[in-house]
Amino acid sequence: MHVSLSCLMKPVLHGYFRSSCSWRVRIALALKGIEYDQVPVNLIKDGGQQLTSQYKEINPMQQVPAVTIDGVTLSQSLAIIQYIEETRPSPQLLPTDPKKRAQVRMISDIIASGIQPLQNLYVLQKIGAEKVQWAQHFIVRGFEALEPLLKQTAGRYCVGDEISMADICLVPQVYNAERFKVDVSQFPTIKRLNQTLLEIDAFKESHPSCQPDTPSDLKS
Amino acid sequence: MHVSLSCLMKPVLHGYFRSSCSWRVRIALALKGIEYDQVPVNLIKDGGQQLTSQYKEINPMQQVPAVTIDGVTLSQSLAIIQYIEETRPSPQLLPTDPKKRAQVRMISDIIASGIQPLQNLYVLQKIGAEKVQWAQHFIVRGFEALEPLLKQTAGRYCVGDEISMADICLVPQVYNAERFKVDVSQFPTIKRLNQTLLEIDAFKESHPSCQPDTPSDLKS
Repeated sequence: MHVSLSCLMKPVLHGYFRSSCSWRVRIALALKGIEYDQVPVNLIKDGGQQLTSQYKEINPMQQVPAVTIDGVTLSQSLAIIQYIEETRPSPQLLPTDPKKRAQVRMISDIIASGIQPLQNLYVLQKIGAEKVQWAQHFIVRGFEALEPLLKQTAGRYCVGDEISMADICLVPQVYNAERFKVDVSQFPTIKRLNQTLLEIDAFKESHPSCQPDTPSDLKS
Repeated sequence: MHVSLSCLMKPVLHGYFRSSCSWRVRIALALKGIEYDQVPVNLIKDGGQQLTSQYKEINPMQQVPAVTIDGVTLSQSLAIIQYIEETRPSPQLLPTDPKKRAQVRMISDIIASGIQPLQNLYVLQKIGAEKVQWAQHFIVRGFEALEPLLKQTAGRYCVGDEISMADICLVPQVYNAERFKVDVSQFPTIKRLNQTLLEIDAFKESHPSCQPDTPSDLKS
């Protein structure tokens, strides 16, 4: 029998403890019960380790996360999560019903295309002095859209009563909101969902405060 | 037999002729041979028709596109396209092989999360005087990452020899690049793919130059 070696190896996550997109992938791996190795890519140290020519081979966008899995290297957190979903289907991170799947993807994309890209480190470095107000503006604008949508779709979690990719996107985005001092209590559905989700082991163990590369003064 | 009325109605696309995300959805609908109605949302006129309270009910993010289909209203172009794919599977817009599907999603997300959100109208209005350089910077940065990836994944199209969601994202992004005077010939794979794809009917008939809301002086 021929078994490819790459399929026997644990997935490798190239990430950074505080990157919200890396956290998304850590949550998905934890929910699926997949063991993996982490290779930290420090986005600050040495001017940013994501900018080395070595890392550019792994992800030409020079961002985290990237995951090496089953012999391929993938970037873009939602592409990674959906690859994991399609190759390791249990527990499901997307509902079976097509309309609910669309709602999960819509909520995920509002965060992954409509909020996070506008407040990531690279963009804020280009914005300069106004960066906190800029980040707050785009997070509040996104949350103002998410709140009424989630009011319609949420049960116990973002879409109904099953954890999905939408929850995986929401919690790290709320973490970013709090870092930028956005008052999340303006958004009661978002606040309630975040609190509920943070009680779940997969969200706790993947939290930025307890990763191998979390600096000791930020560890909890 | 009970047939829901909403399923007998043509889908309605709320879009704008020049919005690259609206064009993505038009290409997908054309490739699938789905007839639909268009409701133009003029992003410029009256200070932006996407900002009305009426449109906010349709898409709380106040962006185009949004699609009403099968009795639901969805926003976020990739969520819409994947809903169409999962409910109207032929012709396939995502490959069957999970690794190829992941490559399609990765390329799509580099554009939909890594490039377009940083050069859309709303962001450029906030940037102000420096907006052309800002847009060029983020498009070039994204294309510098896409070019080596596409060199690995492309056959006749972005991933192998079948048209996919990645192609649907690429062509409107190249159109934006040209609007912002980015020299696309620096990226020979992107340039070649774009030229090949623009020969296909679904890409031609969905082009910004020939939509119901295209101003007559821009019509071709």
